Amino acid sequence: MHNHYTTKRATVLALEEMLFEPLKILDHGFIRVIDYMGNDSAIVQAARVSYGKGTKQLSQDKGLINYLMRHKHTTPFEMCDIKFHIKLPIFVARQWIRHRTASVNEYSARYSILGNEFYLPERSNLAPQSQTNKQGRSMQEVPIEIADKVLALLEKDSKTCYQHYIEMMNQDEEGNIIEKNTIGITRELARMNLTLNYYTEWYWKVNLHNLLNFLLLRADSHAQYEIRVYADKMLEIVKNWVPLTYEAFNEYRLEGCNISKKGLTVIKKLINNEQVTQETSNMSKREWEELMQIIK
Amino acid sequence: MHNHYTTKRATVLALEEMLFEPLKILDHGFIRVIDYMGNDSAIVQAARVSYGKGTKQLSQDKGLINYLMRHKHTTPFEMCDIKFHIKLPIFVARQWIRHRTASVNEYSARYSILGNEFYLPERSNLAPQSQTNKQGRSMQEVPIEIADKVLALLEKDSKTCYQHYIEMMNQDEEGNIIEKNTIGITRELARMNLTLNYYTEWYWKVNLHNLLNFLLLRADSHAQYEIRVYADKMLEIVKNWVPLTYEAFNEYRLEGCNISKKGLTVIKKLINNEQVTQETSNMSKREWEELMQIIK
Amino acid sequence: MHNHYTTKRATVLALEEMLFEPLKILDHGFIRVIDYMGNDSAIVQAARVSYGKGTKQLSQDKGLINYLMRHKHTTPFEMCDIKFHIKLPIFVARQWIRHRTASVNEYSARYSILGNEFYLPERSNLAPQSQTNKQGRSMQEVPIEIADKVLALLEKDSKTCYQHYIEMMNQDEEGNIIEKNTIGITRELARMNLTLNYYTEWYWKVNLHNLLNFLLLRADSHAQYEIRVYADKMLEIVKNWVPLTYEAFNEYRLEGCNISKKGLTVIKKLINNEQVTQETSNMSKREWEELMQIIK
Amino acid sequence: MHNHYTTKRATVLALEEMLFEPLKILDHGFIRVIDYMGNDSAIVQAARVSYGKGTKQLSQDKGLINYLMRHKHTTPFEMCDIKFHIKLPIFVARQWIRHRTASVNEYSARYSILGNEFYLPERSNLAPQSQTNKQGRSMQEVPIEIADKVLALLEKDSKTCYQHYIEMMNQDEEGNIIEKNTIGITRELARMNLTLNYYTEWYWKVNLHNLLNFLLLRADSHAQYEIRVYADKMLEIVKNWVPLTYEAFNEYRLEGCNISKKGLTVIKKLINNEQVTQETSNMSKREWEELMQIIK
Repeated sequence: MHNHYTTKRATVLALEEMLFEPLKILDHGFIRVIDYMGNDSAIVQAARVSYGKGTKQLSQDKGLINYLMRHKHTTPFEMCDIKFHIKLPIFVARQWIRHRTASVNEYSARYSILGNEFYLPERSNLAPQSQTNKQGRSMQEVPIEIADKVLALLEKDSKTCYQHYIEMMNQDEEGNIIEKNTIGITRELARMNLTLNYYTEWYWKVNLHNLLNFLLLRADSHAQYEIRVYADKMLEIVKNWVPLTYEAFNEYRLEGCNISKKGLTVIKKLINNEQVTQETSNMSKREWEELMQIIK
Repeated sequence: MHNHYTTKRATVLALEEMLFEPLKILDHGFIRVIDYMGNDSAIVQAARVSYGKGTKQLSQDKGLINYLMRHKHTTPFEMCDIKFHIKLPIFVARQWIRHRTASVNEYSARYSILGNEFYLPERSNLAPQSQTNKQGRSMQEVPIEIADKVLALLEKDSKTCYQHYIEMMNQDEEGNIIEKNTIGITRELARMNLTLNYYTEWYWKVNLHNLLNFLLLRADSHAQYEIRVYADKMLEIVKNWVPLTYEAFNEYRLEGCNISKKGLTVIKKLINNEQVTQETSNMSKREWEELMQIIK
Repeated sequence: MHNHYTTKRATVLALEEMLFEPLKILDHGFIRVIDYMGNDSAIVQAARVSYGKGTKQLSQDKGLINYLMRHKHTTPFEMCDIKFHIKLPIFVARQWIRHRTASVNEYSARYSILGNEFYLPERSNLAPQSQTNKQGRSMQEVPIEIADKVLALLEKDSKTCYQHYIEMMNQDEEGNIIEKNTIGITRELARMNLTLNYYTEWYWKVNLHNLLNFLLLRADSHAQYEIRVYADKMLEIVKNWVPLTYEAFNEYRLEGCNISKKGLTVIKKLINNEQVTQETSNMSKREWEELMQIIK
Repeated sequence: MHNHYTTKRATVLALEEMLFEPLKILDHGFIRVIDYMGNDSAIVQAARVSYGKGTKQLSQDKGLINYLMRHKHTTPFEMCDIKFHIKLPIFVARQWIRHRTASVNEYSARYSILGNEFYLPERSNLAPQSQTNKQGRSMQEVPIEIADKVLALLEKDSKTCYQHYIEMMNQDEEGNIIEKNTIGITRELARMNLTLNYYTEWYWKVNLHNLLNFLLLRADSHAQYEIRVYADKMLEIVKNWVPLTYEAFNEYRLEGCNISKKGLTVIKKLINNEQVTQETSNMSKREWEELMQIIK
């Protein structure tokens, strides 16, 4: 049970209800909201400090937030913060940490022994390499026999490696000596025997502006499935926390797009019913396809 | 009157009591705490995520916070945030903004007309240039006649410049046209006529780690008086917000010091009652004096 | 005369030729390139480290740089750096410094006396406030008599304030005592009497990614004229330094645009010759106008 | 062979000689300097911009650099940059990346297949867990039989996991299909079967100020041996690149120390031949020991 306090700070009921609850992700992962600061009104309030008396006309919060998002006036979104407790596979953590503008405290395998939990994909997620996307997986699944073989290998190797990790340290997960009269090696070395699907944990604190940048990349269809499920859950949290910002983000970023100079020329021609083809557009084949995808 | 809400978040009673209250600084400035996230326990909690089961021994919050501060394990201090509303002279804002790791929304003189408030020092703060410190002021005061003359000049020039600022825009402080049938220039140009002692305002949000770095530099005797008074007030706020961190910061940073390799050699010799002089220490005259200052 | 050295580092002839030369901006300002690191190939090289053997197909530098820019793979652009020496009015410096991801060493008016140079706009730049853009100036000019009056005020106030600045310190620009037997106040206080059009100087070092972000905002028609002239000159420098990146930046950022979800729907309807109006688009009047502007 | 160019930029002969050469670290790792910007004089030059005419007295470069380092005037050190190509085990990369203020392009195991190289410690580095330092290893070695057993486990698990990685993808290291008529899973999934001692590669670009912060933590005796060897090599590179800065860093940071307020009191008493013990010092046992270590 958590205590309840009285505060004069901006408070969001829908987020309070999620506070501290682990939201399950993948087979053993989770996201828990630990703390937050600010709400939609805090963004508006910060923007009004900037605009001063000049904002009289933009009197509605919703309109102002849309305006900020549309014109990339990003600083007011930095005025909100959120802190998560996240459990995630190491290979996901490695992608995640590339977003530098956040604060992190990760479980240290130098100080403590890592828990015996590793990620095994769902059989339906075992896709072959995409032929068109160098960094992604194709939409098809691999045949069941192959999936089973892969899962068996992953499971066996993970277990073997963990068992040897423990054996090398001569200490069990609780830190108890296993065999007396013998000696183990230090944790910081033994850990290198673990596979990249082992779970780690961290506290991750980020401001709303940087969180939205993270989500733009990681809640995208080009992101790896295993990080996207975390991003998708965070989008839900954002929706509960700052619903007006969520809507604006959806409208202007997530479901909006960038058009290049050449792309704009093509669009104008199409609207004017002028003839235009990939060849006459001066666009590469790939760019042309990307554009057609967007406007079809 | 501010509303009161119920929250499960970490809440600090002593800081809640200061919330939204403008704390007066200089002649027209202030600091108001607008929002905060975390407390001493939040720091401890983040540190424990890192150390895992390895922290059993460091069971007390106070001991752990001292340990973190002493060994510069700074990431847990990033887990707390505070947001201020600050009114300050432009020349102070120019020093302040050099601290890059914070979020800022400043009143924009492109959007709105700046208020007619400027800083005039107390007569007792009108010091001559220091002869020893290239960037500072000396401890003596200037004679009264000179102080009076200086204050008169500052006041007159500030007022004249503001009056012309308004005149050039042909708009008063409220944005009303002054003379019909004539035309003024844009705000973004007119503002360049204001002097650097005019007040501006901003929201400034920073995490505790970066705030302490700011305070280490700006609550220091080498900082300019006009920024130091803001830093000193923030130190008081920090004391109310995270008392254990405040104590540790005071002990290990504010009132601690750095000793160089040569300085350590000198200290060891002095402890062992060996002879050592500036000449034999290999230190410059200035370094030697700084060391003597510290250990005397 | 500058020395010439032999180096194995990536070297750009067109930029070497600009090195150290002050490029004049406004009435007394300038930009000088002091140093740089990397070139278009350095970006490609860094990208290839990421993609490994997977980049065989993207064999051409130009194609790869376009791809990176289009898909916002921004990290390779961080691999180039440039260092400028810039002289600029204080009110411009105040806007500029809001871009936090750069390194700065500014002339300190605590250490030294500021030079007697201030910015006076060209008469043709003295525009009235825009009626549609809260933060900008209108396209028309003010009448000549008004322009002359404004310029006279700006000049007189600037000169008066500087003269009193010197008088308060009792030191001339070269640091010589003016009147013996009297005493002046410290530089850090006296400077507050200067107006915001006085020139300051700094070294500003930034990586190419962050420079492009700066240019996207400041070489834009919504930026204040007095900062835009600096940004425009930097664009020229970028063109000399990394011509492929410059072209891609122009195509995908500067002359490209963002379209919202609703905007995309409108475009699709227009292409399909379907009826659509502001009312049926669900867009605000302003958004609709912005869209029509883009595709007209 | 590398081309030679003519440049007017600051050039450091001793670093030019190291350029592009891989300096071997651990069993398969390396550091290569790819590019650099600035030298000791560039730091001095940037500092002089700040101090203006006020620096006449600090006429010598060496004196000024010492002054900057001693008084933590860190911005001039940001004016130099260096870019490395580094090959390092994944568990080392995980520690390294926590330093956020750098630019990174890492080999992507989503795009390309990771090479078959893993780290095996020297037998003499296989230490047991330290009893006093929660995060470190003790000074003793483990017995030879145990070392041999550990190395055999590490080697066998690494090889098995890599073999299965290849098998799951049905592609060899060169990207060739192994068995026709069958299908493999995508690279981004298969990689999770690799152990943390596999080597990765990246370009890492950092300014000198942030590099020194990195080295202060990682060239320290508390850092894990496997990252310390990289830091030690970088220290050598820094010594070649900016010898005056290296000396100052050594004197005031690496071999200097922080003393707390209580520590200062103890030192003053010892110098005055007054009695002081841990009990009367008000320091914890551990702090007292740390202080005695420093001044003994």
